[in-house]
Amino acid sequence: MNYKMEITYEGTKYRGWQRLKNSDMTIQGKIEAVLSRFLGVETEINGASRTDSGVHALCQLANFKTEMAVDVSELKAYMNQYLPEDICIRNIGAVSESYHARFGSKEKVYLYRIWKAEYPSVFERRTVTQYRGVSLDVEAMKSAAHILEGEHDFKGFCTDKTKKSTVRKINAITFSETDEELKIFVEGNGFLYNMVRIIVGTLMEVGSGQRTAESVKRIIETGDRNIAGETAPPQGLILYKIENSSV
Amino acid sequence: MNYKMEITYEGTKYRGWQRLKNSDMTIQGKIEAVLSRFLGVETEINGASRTDSGVHALCQLANFKTEMAVDVSELKAYMNQYLPEDICIRNIGAVSESYHARFGSKEKVYLYRIWKAEYPSVFERRTVTQYRGVSLDVEAMKSAAHILEGEHDFKGFCTDKTKKSTVRKINAITFSETDEELKIFVEGNGFLYNMVRIIVGTLMEVGSGQRTAESVKRIIETGDRNIAGETAPPQGLILYKIENSSV
Repeated sequence: MNYKMEITYEGTKYRGWQRLKNSDMTIQGKIEAVLSRFLGVETEINGASRTDSGVHALCQLANFKTEMAVDVSELKAYMNQYLPEDICIRNIGAVSESYHARFGSKEKVYLYRIWKAEYPSVFERRTVTQYRGVSLDVEAMKSAAHILEGEHDFKGFCTDKTKKSTVRKINAITFSETDEELKIFVEGNGFLYNMVRIIVGTLMEVGSGQRTAESVKRIIETGDRNIAGETAPPQGLILYKIENSSV
Repeated sequence: MNYKMEITYEGTKYRGWQRLKNSDMTIQGKIEAVLSRFLGVETEINGASRTDSGVHALCQLANFKTEMAVDVSELKAYMNQYLPEDICIRNIGAVSESYHARFGSKEKVYLYRIWKAEYPSVFERRTVTQYRGVSLDVEAMKSAAHILEGEHDFKGFCTDKTKKSTVRKINAITFSETDEELKIFVEGNGFLYNMVRIIVGTLMEVGSGQRTAESVKRIIETGDRNIAGETAPPQGLILYKIENSSV
């Protein structure tokens, strides 16, 4: 049987999603440990997105296969009882054998939260990035974001020196603003290592007047990471939503 | 000069608002320490509400008097730099000499947050009370809440064995509900020790069918704390808003 899980986590104290040999402080590792205990056999899960150290998820997806017929509500209750309080399983359901959380994810939406109020955020301090600079010109940021939309080679927005294709498609970058906070939603068919954080770091440099919106074109054209902006801090990044092509 | 501060805090790790001789883990104590350092002289602040251990505030008010003419934006920046990250000064402004945060507060609004989803809250876990019982009958809770509205002797909803008057006026108890959460807003002219938490604990017993809405009348009539509900946990309680009669 194949089961799909919807997972929420605050990544503050974890070294990211992906299981590590030398640390038990990963989201995947924590979930697999509790799941394996319930099933009585070592069980691996396959996550849709390898979120980085310190990055959060409102809705991560994962699947696992088991010979057992599982009572999903019993499993869910067990998982939430034994998982740490910063990881939660919102839902577990049986899916077709062909479902694969990573390959089956068609579109991902990331949210980046920038706290721009003069006073710091108290209640949401672990999931926002406090911004202490000059006031951000959001219209300029929108112009730069518009240049990034569509299918491009995002090599310049990637930390890895990967030899694989770095072509990705960004469907939309949208903004939502209050007096206290600026939210940036980045929707795309897939993301390279650090890509969303480098995009946001670059947009923030546009917003603060350190670079022009037009300068973003050169990063795409040259694929040169060195002329893109700083990688924005992890705590503001949240894996917000994943659309599946198949369930 | 008299100055008024608007303060936000997550009370999770503090022993409440009020300064204690044997602990530096109080909100008032933390604020006074930083303020006194800035002003160069021991300075006391006067808070509108003595929130309990573990209780939060979205907007607490306090005032302090000083001989100095203070640059309020400089003071605010200094306070927020040196206060712990779970305490924040949203605003500081000069007010008339007669302003007193406690005696000048005309109406207070408390919010109690009950997380009723089957899965636990990850991002807001420090400011909600996880509810694990049967589903709550909110209509029954509203009936019971309606009985509490108005001016009554709330002795039965108070932990203190005070000899002072326990007559208070509750202007309104209102509910706001989503799939995941039930919010209860309690507005009144003043609250006794633990009063909001005992009201919420009693309403939850009504909602879960452990007692009738009508049973609330007896608590008011007898003033007997023993027949009221459990004191609801502190982490769900937030001092939400204070209306001033004078500024």
